[in-house]
Amino acid sequence: MEAIRVGLLGAGVVGSGVVHVLKRNREEIARRAGREIRVVQVCARNLEKARQLVGDEVQVVADPIAMATSPDVDVLVEVIGGTTVAKDAILAALKAGKAVVTANKALLATAGNEVFAAARAGRVPVMFEAAVAGGIPIIKALREGLAANRMQWVAGIINGTTNFILSEMRAKRLPFDAVLKEAQRLGYAEADPTFDIEGVDAAHKLTLLSALAFGIPVQFDRASVEGISKLQAADIAYAEELGYRIKLLGITRKHAAGIELRVHPTLVPAKRLIASVEGAMNAVLIKGDAVGATLYYGPGAGSEPTASAVIADLVDVTRLFTADPEHRVPALAFQHDALAATPILPMSEVETAAYMRLRVADQAGVLADITRILADSNISIDAVLQKEAADGSSETDLIILTHRTKEGAVNAAIARMEMLRSVKGKVVRIRMEELA
Amino acid sequence: MEAIRVGLLGAGVVGSGVVHVLKRNREEIARRAGREIRVVQVCARNLEKARQLVGDEVQVVADPIAMATSPDVDVLVEVIGGTTVAKDAILAALKAGKAVVTANKALLATAGNEVFAAARAGRVPVMFEAAVAGGIPIIKALREGLAANRMQWVAGIINGTTNFILSEMRAKRLPFDAVLKEAQRLGYAEADPTFDIEGVDAAHKLTLLSALAFGIPVQFDRASVEGISKLQAADIAYAEELGYRIKLLGITRKHAAGIELRVHPTLVPAKRLIASVEGAMNAVLIKGDAVGATLYYGPGAGSEPTASAVIADLVDVTRLFTADPEHRVPALAFQHDALAATPILPMSEVETAAYMRLRVADQAGVLADITRILADSNISIDAVLQKEAADGSSETDLIILTHRTKEGAVNAAIARMEMLRSVKGKVVRIRMEELA
Repeated sequence: MEAIRVGLLGAGVVGSGVVHVLKRNREEIARRAGREIRVVQVCARNLEKARQLVGDEVQVVADPIAMATSPDVDVLVEVIGGTTVAKDAILAALKAGKAVVTANKALLATAGNEVFAAARAGRVPVMFEAAVAGGIPIIKALREGLAANRMQWVAGIINGTTNFILSEMRAKRLPFDAVLKEAQRLGYAEADPTFDIEGVDAAHKLTLLSALAFGIPVQFDRASVEGISKLQAADIAYAEELGYRIKLLGITRKHAAGIELRVHPTLVPAKRLIASVEGAMNAVLIKGDAVGATLYYGPGAGSEPTASAVIADLVDVTRLFTADPEHRVPALAFQHDALAATPILPMSEVETAAYMRLRVADQAGVLADITRILADSNISIDAVLQKEAADGSSETDLIILTHRTKEGAVNAAIARMEMLRSVKGKVVRIRMEELA
Repeated sequence: MEAIRVGLLGAGVVGSGVVHVLKRNREEIARRAGREIRVVQVCARNLEKARQLVGDEVQVVADPIAMATSPDVDVLVEVIGGTTVAKDAILAALKAGKAVVTANKALLATAGNEVFAAARAGRVPVMFEAAVAGGIPIIKALREGLAANRMQWVAGIINGTTNFILSEMRAKRLPFDAVLKEAQRLGYAEADPTFDIEGVDAAHKLTLLSALAFGIPVQFDRASVEGISKLQAADIAYAEELGYRIKLLGITRKHAAGIELRVHPTLVPAKRLIASVEGAMNAVLIKGDAVGATLYYGPGAGSEPTASAVIADLVDVTRLFTADPEHRVPALAFQHDALAATPILPMSEVETAAYMRLRVADQAGVLADITRILADSNISIDAVLQKEAADGSSETDLIILTHRTKEGAVNAAIARMEMLRSVKGKVVRIRMEELA
């Protein structure tokens, strides 16, 4: 089966993520897509940087239009950003009948109608999962997963920089300027942070979400946009006192008379899941008439999270739009002839941390006996909680949290503990996972 | 354009959801799919109930195999459940070259390999988004949206009944038996709740997630399954004291040596987003090597949430597998010729609640002046927080939360407030959303 040949425009943060993930997960991706996905040409402002990224096997090209229209390229991946070179190359590729995958929210929010028309004229897809909320497959959710619904509203934390700043302002009770400087130092904010902090980037993304949710053309120029640069620490504190968090939300809502399209700092009840989204993470909440509210959470930017979305689009192009119905989306995600024979582990081989509760005699030496058994089994203890015996009782609860250990060893240790005279009845064991 | 003709097997909770949503959102769905999706035949155990559900325009059929193989049906939707009639009908439809959409996790977890082989032999898709986590498009996320990733682990709250019971046990400090009775009374648990409370339903779903994540055949018989029926209120309380919540998680994780496949009560750090998933809601956390951790949250059961997933599959079948490349997934979710001209509302027409902070003179009558302005503008007040003036200051902060009002009215009221002599400087206004 021939590989899908990618022309990569841009060798920066996202471009290098695409190259690295395609290389690292080459086999895994081919098992899913039914074909290999291979970068065959790369074009970047800095040719030397491009060469260093892709090595000698990939052609480095100086002219983006030449790459976009090359007969050796099946799909153009545009991750160079901006609205000039990127636009020209995308339109050239579409005109030449090549599928396009782009992460360019600024371009699509402002010139999307033109780009989508060119894609229709060329009878090829233009895919942009990476343009909104980075690695979270939110465009696929809106466009496909929730296709049964009349959408009511979408509300999202869709800019990581501002969510990081707001999280820090609240946690450390610091003013905006101080946190912005810290964010710049850590790489969460750019040297010129205007697009992020004034809500423009969020409005680009919201424009796309609104079009997807409600079936309207992109209309960035109609969005109402207010950023966080004027937000004061006092208001974050008062909001908290009243049971709210302040988040920069993009909100789009449909009424009979029209559609709301707005980005602004927003008080949200602290008990909502989306209020607990901290740091540079993104989350999008969608309300549909049939499904109700669903929420999608994850990293909204960064090299490999964004590459994850770009490559998902490449897999989609491979599966859905190539003349190759044999390789449509397979039932179990992987092509049937590429399923693995990896065995399921017996539970005794599974490692977890554990919570144990023992009912023990309230007497000296009990804890020593029990911790000796754990030590003999090489089970290390994370925490111990010994409760006082209730009035008149000679027994009490002893709770032990262990570090990760193979289940088999824990089972053996529990069996030994239950044989101690000071341990009453069965030991309660509940597994623990950090999920970090 | 001809409609896609659906044969609906099952007229219970999910089946009626499918009929109602397809009818209510007929136009919206056709604008997305490019064709109408129409139920043309229905087969159910109770023919009278089927007739009442679909009315006179739809054929009610007594024989499921006849419907599954009927030349008048393009797609079989199986929502009757169980592993006998459902299996026979699905296999017959696939053999007859008809696409199948099913919500049947028990069938797929135990006989999925056979069903998927039949789909390959018939060269038709079998879709099952509704089989896991109801309305959350989690199968699409694993199968398509995260296709770039080597999956590391998946951990999910994938049974609403048990999550409801655990949430109630914690919130009300009640024992399992009492809460189960309450759940049965409210309809969150079935009369025979065994499959839910013993973790079998979650293990069915986890089996599918594991296969999708790691590219292995379904192997329900290898899953390790422990439910919540023996869980004691004391352990939920101790866990909370230690900073954890107890959730019934399905966990599957890949190691070089093998794959973990296990359902059991699990302590999870309370600060994790998934620990805050309460009531009958579902959430799935996926860790991929490129994207990192993403989380998907929403209703995991119920008539219309499940129907949402069934119909998304029907839209996919229509878009991806019909001989109709013109109607593949459109760039903006809706077919180009079906975009709406709905206008974007000006911000003055948008309704939100508002937080206002006023710097005011610390003197009598100020609050009366301000609330008078709000009353004149028909803006009703939700809460007022008046801070004491700091020592030596003659000014203080007054915070007002309003109910939902049109932005134009709020702007006008703020302008009037700012003209009061007792109000110092600009009024801070931050919008509020309940997102309920």
